[in-house]
Amino acid sequence: MRADLLLIGFGHVGRRFARLIDEQRETLRAVFDLECRVIGIATRNHGHAISDQGGLDAIVAAALIESGGSLSQLAGAGNQRVARHAPMDLAVFSACLERLASSDAALKVVVETTTLNIDDGRPAIDHVERALTAGCHVVTANKGPVAFAYRRLARMAAEANVRFLFEGAVMDGIPVFNLVRETLPAVSILGFRGVVNSTTNHILSALEEGEEFAPALARMQAAGIAEADPSLDVDGWDAAAKAAALANVLLGADVTPHDVDRTGVGLDTSARAHAAVARGNRLRLVASARRGERPIVRPIELPPEDLLYGLRGVANAIVFETDLLGRVAITQLDGSLTLTAYALLSDLVAIRRDRRAPVEARPGRNP
Amino acid sequence: MRADLLLIGFGHVGRRFARLIDEQRETLRAVFDLECRVIGIATRNHGHAISDQGGLDAIVAAALIESGGSLSQLAGAGNQRVARHAPMDLAVFSACLERLASSDAALKVVVETTTLNIDDGRPAIDHVERALTAGCHVVTANKGPVAFAYRRLARMAAEANVRFLFEGAVMDGIPVFNLVRETLPAVSILGFRGVVNSTTNHILSALEEGEEFAPALARMQAAGIAEADPSLDVDGWDAAAKAAALANVLLGADVTPHDVDRTGVGLDTSARAHAAVARGNRLRLVASARRGERPIVRPIELPPEDLLYGLRGVANAIVFETDLLGRVAITQLDGSLTLTAYALLSDLVAIRRDRRAPVEARPGRNP
Repeated sequence: MRADLLLIGFGHVGRRFARLIDEQRETLRAVFDLECRVIGIATRNHGHAISDQGGLDAIVAAALIESGGSLSQLAGAGNQRVARHAPMDLAVFSACLERLASSDAALKVVVETTTLNIDDGRPAIDHVERALTAGCHVVTANKGPVAFAYRRLARMAAEANVRFLFEGAVMDGIPVFNLVRETLPAVSILGFRGVVNSTTNHILSALEEGEEFAPALARMQAAGIAEADPSLDVDGWDAAAKAAALANVLLGADVTPHDVDRTGVGLDTSARAHAAVARGNRLRLVASARRGERPIVRPIELPPEDLLYGLRGVANAIVFETDLLGRVAITQLDGSLTLTAYALLSDLVAIRRDRRAPVEARPGRNP
Repeated sequence: MRADLLLIGFGHVGRRFARLIDEQRETLRAVFDLECRVIGIATRNHGHAISDQGGLDAIVAAALIESGGSLSQLAGAGNQRVARHAPMDLAVFSACLERLASSDAALKVVVETTTLNIDDGRPAIDHVERALTAGCHVVTANKGPVAFAYRRLARMAAEANVRFLFEGAVMDGIPVFNLVRETLPAVSILGFRGVVNSTTNHILSALEEGEEFAPALARMQAAGIAEADPSLDVDGWDAAAKAAALANVLLGADVTPHDVDRTGVGLDTSARAHAAVARGNRLRLVASARRGERPIVRPIELPPEDLLYGLRGVANAIVFETDLLGRVAITQLDGSLTLTAYALLSDLVAIRRDRRAPVEARPGRNP
């Protein structure tokens, strides 16, 4: 079965995804009867390309961009029609989407990997809305749509009989949403608590080892662990977006990251981290929520008995509280770009499987 | 869709399962379009019952047995034909199976909950073999079949186009086999290490707190945590059966529990446990294997950084080493009979889903 893909955003994650589906081509075909073809790529800074027929060479496209080129240079490559250098706006997006929607592929999928806009989740939400309305499936690694507009988008997807999947929004490719949906039938999630942001994890470890906040953050920025503008991480926005996404999907909430009771890590955190260590404990930025309650993100002092205590650096974990199984935890111990790209691949396979299992798409006790 | 069930074994797990599917009846119907009917129950010590038509009242049957009665007392209950008081042997099993195989239900499922025979996995393996050959699905909480004969039984199931599922064999209802099969498509498991036996976990915690081995074990036996014959747990056989099951299913091995390099906990463990604590570490009974290597079960000293370090009592965990996602861990933090019964329910739902997804039954990179 052929899946035609439109890649919206082609940064590190989008390019790693393009390479991953190429690396896994044989497995996808043999095990899942799934053949992926990239028919369009739209970027904000490197133009966009749409193929008239056949697929684009996404590997060549990735190499072009990494060598400082533009997608316009794909022009010579056979049957590929390449559009303007113009950055992606909604008009460009719509033109690309039209091409996907008119494809004769059994599966038409928009792969959304633009970056999070913590103000309102746009334009990613617009991309998802338009894709669903056009009858295309959506898989995204962007937290915005599920954190700001899950309920509306899920309803639109159900009405259009397509899927809106977002495994990469929390803990990269480690199954979180898929874990609950596919392996915990009839289980109700009552609440969760987790460590879901790696940058603050790194910073808190540094503070524990005696560094002060400002130099620790500067070192993380120099090492590429923290962003030039680190507020998304240190102010707890990234964790809040993940908490909102988890609460919306698993706890039936209808909140945005701005509804989360949010405290980040900052200049005053050093003293708390040192005091925690002195008591044999550790400070971690914990995201949590319970059904019917406002999600919370804040630094919490954890004893060694706590599963979240041992998490350092890229290690993340979520402990789910359930009705039938008590507490169940899933832990990510390593991190890499491959994990985020894998989240998109696993969603793609879920869509492929779904074609034969329409009953599972029904709104149930679990999403 | 109706599933007719034949319950083989009706001890604590079997009875909890019967009640769980009754408690979850509405969810199973509404979310999964699945209606379960128990058409036979066979036990070793309490006789067996087969219904001529309609279903048995498994709730009444459970109460009967718990009040010291026999399944023969179900006789008066409507259209139920109750057979001899005779304990289950293969002849009785076959008569029950014949009734199931001749049912007009869309799904015919043998639910096997007999206890583990660590010598050779029989008669559970015989039950599974005959059920598969008769064209019935099998779900089991007994480790024997998957630990001793996975490859053969999986082949028989594939040939008969039915499923052989055993989520309850390791970590109760916490998804382990389902986790890999349903949420990690295209991922290869390279190895695993885990704490999978609760009794030894309890004992090691007691040793750390200064108890000696013999009194600690006696206390566990008095509290019902350890069996009267504790050798299955303390000699590492239970963990070895789980290691063999995991290696057979996830690593492509073809071993039995007797092939596992096995060291249990015993009189000499106290000193090692104390020494570990003195170094700030903990001793845990760790089951592990890597692709192509012999599985190992032995007490290992773990530092606080190790995810397995913090596990006490019923808490179990497995860390999977994978090709695409690095290390991923799943942790069970609580335990109860409901968790084991839930494993059977989740396998039942997997079979229901499978009816619409035959492609997933293909032998793939993951089981």
